[in-house]
Amino acid sequence: MNDCIFCKIVAGEIPAAKVFENEHVVAFLDISQVTKGHTLVIPKIHKENLYELTPEIAAHLFEIVPNIANAIKGAYEPIGLNLLNNNGEKAGQSVFHYHLHLIPRYGEGDGFGAVWKSHQSEYKPEDYQQIASEIKANL
Amino acid sequence: MNDCIFCKIVAGEIPAAKVFENEHVVAFLDISQVTKGHTLVIPKIHKENLYELTPEIAAHLFEIVPNIANAIKGAYEPIGLNLLNNNGEKAGQSVFHYHLHLIPRYGEGDGFGAVWKSHQSEYKPEDYQQIASEIKANL
Repeated sequence: MNDCIFCKIVAGEIPAAKVFENEHVVAFLDISQVTKGHTLVIPKIHKENLYELTPEIAAHLFEIVPNIANAIKGAYEPIGLNLLNNNGEKAGQSVFHYHLHLIPRYGEGDGFGAVWKSHQSEYKPEDYQQIASEIKANL
Repeated sequence: MNDCIFCKIVAGEIPAAKVFENEHVVAFLDISQVTKGHTLVIPKIHKENLYELTPEIAAHLFEIVPNIANAIKGAYEPIGLNLLNNNGEKAGQSVFHYHLHLIPRYGEGDGFGAVWKSHQSEYKPEDYQQIASEIKANL
């Protein structure tokens, strides 16, 4: 897409600190470096978000992620690593070309964390079956 | 693995609200339902974390994720959706069988959020090239 910053990185029209590239994907450092080594993996083809990925594009993208994660681990020995992907502005998406964040972790206050509230106490066993049925009905 | 709760779900030894299953993966509701429709996708084979996934296992896992995401979207019309994967206890991992969270979003205070601090101001252009080089050296 003409005005997509990540398409321009794919095309080499703007610079990025590339970590890996093949026929299908590019991995490069996120400029925000939420933690040191914070890397994005994107498909070369323009897809706005997860909903638009074909199974083939998804497979090609994710098959290289363990290798990138292991390379980050080898370089910086983080104590953990999170994958994050935001779809939709209200879910935190700011560039509308699909991208998966690899965020190595170094401890409390390192730049990343998750807000996480369980709602298990509000659900009965049959509620889970009902929700699963509603999702399956849309598959 | 004998004592792995997710291996027991794969084997049908303990119940789960399954959304999808094929030869390679199972998708089922996360019991915590951080948000309504919160779903996990796991490989059937026991792998502790992202670092242990082969490219093939990773590809088989992620190729079905867009379809599951679209089914959640179809069922509940969330305003966004996050993918999250925690590797290592200090990155939030609590079950040590690889799992990818699909978390539909409904707005502020819905149960999920990300703590996110940019460190861009601390990095010079050459720092990015240095970090990328260090990661590439471990590929």
